[in-house]
Amino acid sequence: MSTHTDFGVWPGEQTTDLPAQTDAGIYFIGRIRTPWKERKDCPKNARQSDAVCTVELDPRWQDGLKDVETCTHLVLLYWMDKSPRNLVLQVPGSYGVQRGTFSLRSPARPNPIAMSVVKLMRIEGNELSVVGLDCLDGTPLLDIKPYFASTDSVPDAVVGWHRNR
Amino acid sequence: MSTHTDFGVWPGEQTTDLPAQTDAGIYFIGRIRTPWKERKDCPKNARQSDAVCTVELDPRWQDGLKDVETCTHLVLLYWMDKSPRNLVLQVPGSYGVQRGTFSLRSPARPNPIAMSVVKLMRIEGNELSVVGLDCLDGTPLLDIKPYFASTDSVPDAVVGWHRNR
Repeated sequence: MSTHTDFGVWPGEQTTDLPAQTDAGIYFIGRIRTPWKERKDCPKNARQSDAVCTVELDPRWQDGLKDVETCTHLVLLYWMDKSPRNLVLQVPGSYGVQRGTFSLRSPARPNPIAMSVVKLMRIEGNELSVVGLDCLDGTPLLDIKPYFASTDSVPDAVVGWHRNR
Repeated sequence: MSTHTDFGVWPGEQTTDLPAQTDAGIYFIGRIRTPWKERKDCPKNARQSDAVCTVELDPRWQDGLKDVETCTHLVLLYWMDKSPRNLVLQVPGSYGVQRGTFSLRSPARPNPIAMSVVKLMRIEGNELSVVGLDCLDGTPLLDIKPYFASTDSVPDAVVGWHRNR
């Protein structure tokens, strides 16, 4: 994830023209509560922290949590709304090399939807306690999905540029 | 995934009131080409098919594919726009039991964003050939991410309701 403290276009970065309008709308269905109030405080990736974070689901959706307690792990989708959406080539501060946006998990992407796999610790009412997040406190939640090892787990997957850096 | 041929509310299903407005907008950044023209033809899950599907990225974003060719697997996010967004309890046709929306991978959810892990076969220009999709032909693409086994792979994750059914 980028460690830029602001999102100006850096040397080696390249933007594209955004479409004139968006194509669909999303609802923020809750908020994620984490210990991290500023970008610089966030762990570089989710495996760097064992902090227990809280997912506060809007009560409107609470009945949708039925059976979620039977899951050991979940996929969370959330919205990283502080990022530019027009970068196609970027130079993440943590790597210092130009990469294509779609080869990175940087929040700067056309649709700033983050995906994290988290371990579910506990559900109380509309609040889920989870481990495995690295986002800012207050991040808008988009979705909660059950994690199926049969389709979602690929232990031998390789990101070549990362392995060889 | 639900096998309903239409999305009426079935016995045992429960809806909620949707918020008055959406909170953010998303861009369709491409289209997914698959062999499946109707819902009934789609595989029930992505591991049921070894069909090679094509991801057509809008040329506007093509430079963002740099370095993606070094990835063996990708996360694709896409938009399942034919689904109702107000269901909190649903009875998937393939299981016949009432479940909470967030315990299912059903396309019917407040934000109908699907997540699939796919194997990357080849990239030519703005087209990616991948294995591991189960969606309708023409499905709008939202994002392409590198799959990091270190954070995304949890081989021993369990979905209890599914194991015990």
